[in-house]
Amino acid sequence: MSKVEETTLARSFPARYAGRTVLAVGAHPDDVELGIGGTLARLSRAGARVVIAVASVPSHYGTRRKEAEASAKILGCELRVLLDGGGCQRIEDVKHYQLVGMLDDVVRELGPAAVLTHSASEMHSDHISVHNACVSTQRLRYFDFFAFNPTMCRPMPVPFYPRAYVDISETIEVKMHAIAAHESQFANRGIDLAIFRDTAHLMGRLVGVQYAEGLDVGRLLLN
Amino acid sequence: MSKVEETTLARSFPARYAGRTVLAVGAHPDDVELGIGGTLARLSRAGARVVIAVASVPSHYGTRRKEAEASAKILGCELRVLLDGGGCQRIEDVKHYQLVGMLDDVVRELGPAAVLTHSASEMHSDHISVHNACVSTQRLRYFDFFAFNPTMCRPMPVPFYPRAYVDISETIEVKMHAIAAHESQFANRGIDLAIFRDTAHLMGRLVGVQYAEGLDVGRLLLN
Amino acid sequence: MSKVEETTLARSFPARYAGRTVLAVGAHPDDVELGIGGTLARLSRAGARVVIAVASVPSHYGTRRKEAEASAKILGCELRVLLDGGGCQRIEDVKHYQLVGMLDDVVRELGPAAVLTHSASEMHSDHISVHNACVSTQRLRYFDFFAFNPTMCRPMPVPFYPRAYVDISETIEVKMHAIAAHESQFANRGIDLAIFRDTAHLMGRLVGVQYAEGLDVGRLLLN
Amino acid sequence: MSKVEETTLARSFPARYAGRTVLAVGAHPDDVELGIGGTLARLSRAGARVVIAVASVPSHYGTRRKEAEASAKILGCELRVLLDGGGCQRIEDVKHYQLVGMLDDVVRELGPAAVLTHSASEMHSDHISVHNACVSTQRLRYFDFFAFNPTMCRPMPVPFYPRAYVDISETIEVKMHAIAAHESQFANRGIDLAIFRDTAHLMGRLVGVQYAEGLDVGRLLLN
Amino acid sequence: MSKVEETTLARSFPARYAGRTVLAVGAHPDDVELGIGGTLARLSRAGARVVIAVASVPSHYGTRRKEAEASAKILGCELRVLLDGGGCQRIEDVKHYQLVGMLDDVVRELGPAAVLTHSASEMHSDHISVHNACVSTQRLRYFDFFAFNPTMCRPMPVPFYPRAYVDISETIEVKMHAIAAHESQFANRGIDLAIFRDTAHLMGRLVGVQYAEGLDVGRLLLN
Amino acid sequence: MSKVEETTLARSFPARYAGRTVLAVGAHPDDVELGIGGTLARLSRAGARVVIAVASVPSHYGTRRKEAEASAKILGCELRVLLDGGGCQRIEDVKHYQLVGMLDDVVRELGPAAVLTHSASEMHSDHISVHNACVSTQRLRYFDFFAFNPTMCRPMPVPFYPRAYVDISETIEVKMHAIAAHESQFANRGIDLAIFRDTAHLMGRLVGVQYAEGLDVGRLLLN
Repeated sequence: MSKVEETTLARSFPARYAGRTVLAVGAHPDDVELGIGGTLARLSRAGARVVIAVASVPSHYGTRRKEAEASAKILGCELRVLLDGGGCQRIEDVKHYQLVGMLDDVVRELGPAAVLTHSASEMHSDHISVHNACVSTQRLRYFDFFAFNPTMCRPMPVPFYPRAYVDISETIEVKMHAIAAHESQFANRGIDLAIFRDTAHLMGRLVGVQYAEGLDVGRLLLN
Repeated sequence: MSKVEETTLARSFPARYAGRTVLAVGAHPDDVELGIGGTLARLSRAGARVVIAVASVPSHYGTRRKEAEASAKILGCELRVLLDGGGCQRIEDVKHYQLVGMLDDVVRELGPAAVLTHSASEMHSDHISVHNACVSTQRLRYFDFFAFNPTMCRPMPVPFYPRAYVDISETIEVKMHAIAAHESQFANRGIDLAIFRDTAHLMGRLVGVQYAEGLDVGRLLLN
Repeated sequence: MSKVEETTLARSFPARYAGRTVLAVGAHPDDVELGIGGTLARLSRAGARVVIAVASVPSHYGTRRKEAEASAKILGCELRVLLDGGGCQRIEDVKHYQLVGMLDDVVRELGPAAVLTHSASEMHSDHISVHNACVSTQRLRYFDFFAFNPTMCRPMPVPFYPRAYVDISETIEVKMHAIAAHESQFANRGIDLAIFRDTAHLMGRLVGVQYAEGLDVGRLLLN
Repeated sequence: MSKVEETTLARSFPARYAGRTVLAVGAHPDDVELGIGGTLARLSRAGARVVIAVASVPSHYGTRRKEAEASAKILGCELRVLLDGGGCQRIEDVKHYQLVGMLDDVVRELGPAAVLTHSASEMHSDHISVHNACVSTQRLRYFDFFAFNPTMCRPMPVPFYPRAYVDISETIEVKMHAIAAHESQFANRGIDLAIFRDTAHLMGRLVGVQYAEGLDVGRLLLN
Repeated sequence: MSKVEETTLARSFPARYAGRTVLAVGAHPDDVELGIGGTLARLSRAGARVVIAVASVPSHYGTRRKEAEASAKILGCELRVLLDGGGCQRIEDVKHYQLVGMLDDVVRELGPAAVLTHSASEMHSDHISVHNACVSTQRLRYFDFFAFNPTMCRPMPVPFYPRAYVDISETIEVKMHAIAAHESQFANRGIDLAIFRDTAHLMGRLVGVQYAEGLDVGRLLLN
Repeated sequence: MSKVEETTLARSFPARYAGRTVLAVGAHPDDVELGIGGTLARLSRAGARVVIAVASVPSHYGTRRKEAEASAKILGCELRVLLDGGGCQRIEDVKHYQLVGMLDDVVRELGPAAVLTHSASEMHSDHISVHNACVSTQRLRYFDFFAFNPTMCRPMPVPFYPRAYVDISETIEVKMHAIAAHESQFANRGIDLAIFRDTAHLMGRLVGVQYAEGLDVGRLLLN
């Protein structure tokens, strides 16, 4: 590998997290795949330990848990379910401070270099709760904090303006594969996945790459 | 140097721009020093070519031009003055499309990896014009785009919320030195510089470092 | 035609403007085509008189004027150029109150039922000037007021959140055709038009139709 | 009726919903009357089926339920109470996902062409919950989505900026009558209703009609 | 006068400026009357020196200048015209920095305790220019800084959210009288003034008084 | 005391509330001290009755209750705990309408001239709940309504833009003393208090005084 290639690689976004831990937090199975599946695959491939924390499995526990595990495997990530008593649970089954407490525990254990989660502008109140809980965990220690595109099975307009874009040209197929792993949510309901690829393609062209995922920047220390 | 140190260095923010060009655009001499003097010094030290483009010298051409040159030297940057006929000029002496044209020329020539300039939320209309002109140059090619803290000699409240923070603990003294080089604006008017250090200190503590400069993120491709 | 079909047709968006005048205002040739070409084609087909007012032709007057005329014809619209002395002119060649005066004259003459123009969030200062001038013309008389998506030849991210969507499934090809008529801006510069179709496709799917254009709502009287 | 009159009528806002169902959702009895009583009366008169869904009756069940029924009758609307076990209930008595579920059921049953509810900017947290729940129901199917003015018995300033205005000049008296039907909230507490008429009068003059109600536009498909 | 009355008087808003100077800046004659005529009358009556600075007289110099003088006299204020060569001038006849310079001069001369002007959200670009110029003058010295309601002869919706309200119950008639003094703008064009009284009445009721004017707070030192 | 001194004193911010009651509402012990400790001390010294309402003591009831009492005494304020059954309680232990009810009771009893509380932009969901509950109490009667800086033990960036500033140069030491009284939160956890003094110093310099606290203005009647 030439010096230039090495440098380029070294200063890439994934390189920032190589050898460190990245925590992706979603309200339900499939959320992080929809929002940042391509980003997580890139980080994992570049040598980061990537942990997906799913707050809760609200329905069809067996099926959706298995799908989440398959999907995490495709992305090269570890999976955790926060509210996990071996059956379905809803985020509203616990108080908000308990949700914060669960996330605090994960942050204390993992010491993540970055946390990525839902944004404050969402169509599902569970997504907003998870966002708010992640905001609170910032008090424990410094980590980069990003929020991803509103996520949903069936498209509807929700305001979101990304400030950062992750080039996922190399991992778009992995992302699509991971989304597809959630068969109960998509294939079994006859939902076409093409819009997720098309969205990534459109975002990519806004910044001159083939496919991209958009992120809002909550807190980023350029050191 | 150990492997770990090398990696840490490599994935640092300055490393992202090593061997590439960064363009900092200010409306008048002293603006980029106030906003991102510490950041520019770090980038320069890390091997980036840093060009400061001052849109215009509105008064005391000889004095302020010399101060700007001295300050750029302190920061390890090259200096350009865009409206430069060898005497004082005001940004409003040209049409906005002419200002955009001048910036377009600089962007075409330098091919910057990043552009840093004033934000849209400012107390001086020249600063906003420069911001808007830089926004337009984004159509020419991709570059990272950041906006810095409102800049002024005498403090007054202006809304600004940084999303990214550059650790300038190593270059705070260089920054203070570069600001002080603008004697006509500060020492000769009896203006105390302490507030600039204190602001950097406060920003630093928000993200766990000693001194920092805040940036808004306009466009950032994490590739 | 059945009663139901008649009713559905009657209460459609284009029907709102049938037999009335709609004014679309763009800063330069190609702007309204990019933003609302499909909408204008629909309105024209439904019996509205649609007037495209281009504020100025900033370069290659002969070529771009001809392209604008060809494009307007494709969309079924009339064309006017506001700053038109038979050669290139820039919006900044006149004072803002003069631009407002020109628009006032057009509004007084046409008595439009709706005005559609650039939004306040744009990447080109001429677009913002045109938006602001249209805002001012609202004082003369009531008309529906809409703002369209930021327009540009080469894609870059600009914040914009549409609140209304016009179904352009029937006129997407007309829109693409009208954009292509601006050869000097696209074909001759090797710019691919696919992104405009893809954007319309993505917007459409957000509201359950094949292709759509997004609008911000400035003022809308539901009477 | 002349052709012109027919056309004008046909393309009116109420005509858009003639023969279709419109769903108005309020947190408590009297909310939709205050926010959009005049709009609902117009829609009902124009042939729409208008259903008012009141989320809960928090106090004096018998009295307030009767008032709500009387008021709905005045407006020509059907009334539903979502949390209705024959006695007082509070929205917070159920989880948010249960509230969403109740609204989902209503949307599935009625297949509304439009939903109108509280906005996100409100002075009562129940109003915000109802807004958020309605936002979520948008995923089920397309319908026009509007939010109305903050509603309260005693006036206090709450930020809200309407983008659309419904001309209620013909139904202002019906609206006032419907509000007055909530005697327990107004007459019995000595609250003067004049402010609601005056507000409608002021809104009307902003868009050139005698009386109007203001709406924010959440999602509007102009097809 | 009892002790309590004295105290109440002393701590009133006008008392804050008794014996000090307040500067009201409008783009054209009639602007400050429409926005804060009642406030200025109260301040003047309470012993403040109130100076109205009109940036320019854009038309019918003789008539409008006389009207402005009559109106200022009604309000108990001094009048200045900034761009005043004895004939009509437009704000755009000077560069923005020249407008700032004129305001700087007035601020240096008067040393105002408060400046009140247009807000940044307006329907006329001259109003926005004046706002921006006033923002810049804040760097010279501390003064309270307020922005008033968008002003226009003919009503149209413009977003504005007041945070402070001045009780003008005692001076509403003076305000109406001062507005009426601008005969060329209102009576001679058949424009009804009732909306200005009604707006003040509505604002008043939001905060429990009979009539009020709304202000946005730019900078307020509670010392 | 000279006439001038008397007048200056009379029209000061604290004088506005002399002989009246001011209510400061915080989610937990130490919140109002961090946000407005200096302001409360000034108001108390100027003759206002200042009541601190702490919504809940979530941990170490005995210790934190004692600290809160000591701190209130230092500031010259009365202390109330809203959810107080003699042991730890969480705000989420009650429904939001119950929290509103508790605040309503306090407002009815005290008839405050001003209420100061958390802003809507916060890092802790309890703070936001308290803010929202205070917003609702505004319907009961008029009072000035202010929101203070996001409060936290360990610094992290949270968006907040103050519009008003209270000069606390005379009470900064009292504020620091009151914060220090919460030993369990700071000294015992090794948290340095210097950042709170530095923040006040920086805010002060923005408006030309030595130390200040920043406030957002929710509702302010200038009568």
